[in-house]
Amino acid sequence: MTTQKPMTTQDVANRLVSLCREGKVLEAGEELYADNIISLEPNSLQSPRLEGKKAVREKGNQFAAMIEATHGGHISDPIVAGDYFSIAWLMDVTMKGQGRTKMEEIATYKVKDGKIEWKQFLYSM
Amino acid sequence: MTTQKPMTTQDVANRLVSLCREGKVLEAGEELYADNIISLEPNSLQSPRLEGKKAVREKGNQFAAMIEATHGGHISDPIVAGDYFSIAWLMDVTMKGQGRTKMEEIATYKVKDGKIEWKQFLYSM
Repeated sequence: MTTQKPMTTQDVANRLVSLCREGKVLEAGEELYADNIISLEPNSLQSPRLEGKKAVREKGNQFAAMIEATHGGHISDPIVAGDYFSIAWLMDVTMKGQGRTKMEEIATYKVKDGKIEWKQFLYSM
Repeated sequence: MTTQKPMTTQDVANRLVSLCREGKVLEAGEELYADNIISLEPNSLQSPRLEGKKAVREKGNQFAAMIEATHGGHISDPIVAGDYFSIAWLMDVTMKGQGRTKMEEIATYKVKDGKIEWKQFLYSM
């Protein structure tokens, strides 16, 4: 039996950014989210707070299914402080029934034992 | 009478970082905080939420008065998305009665009409 050290905050940040830049956003969640993750989107009317990997996965699947076309986007390098890291995420997408839209958000994550146990998405309304 | 366009999120972010890197943290608040600013520190027992520039100023003055010596620190370049920006802030300080400590936080700010109307400090416990 080998004991692996858990990934650091910087490791998790780099891995998340790397996967999401490849378009593997849902895969990133599967790999990096803790089972008991808390997800906050204070500006969301539908789901300002979700708890648990299953609920977050369902929300992610729903969002992905709403994207008709991706025209561009940008994910910044992460900034890291202690257990937390943040990225700036710009999406230029056509959403089903809503037309083309540019979404900009600051996504912040908290890491514990190599997994993301808390995340917060702040986007402009 | 001239009408000036309010500073953009990027402008405010650059100005805040520039002042804080010069050690002018309190001055940055005076210049950039909106009168009705909301300040969140969810990990703080004493003041998880403050409202208004006066309350935030008092908290800032108290914190500054607690710092006995500054040994180092680092403020990252800001990442910007829409109305929000974040910085990673590392402080290496001796606090009165508490000894030397390294504090690391992700500070996130929301800008409206060229002023910071909301801020959130997330630090590791």
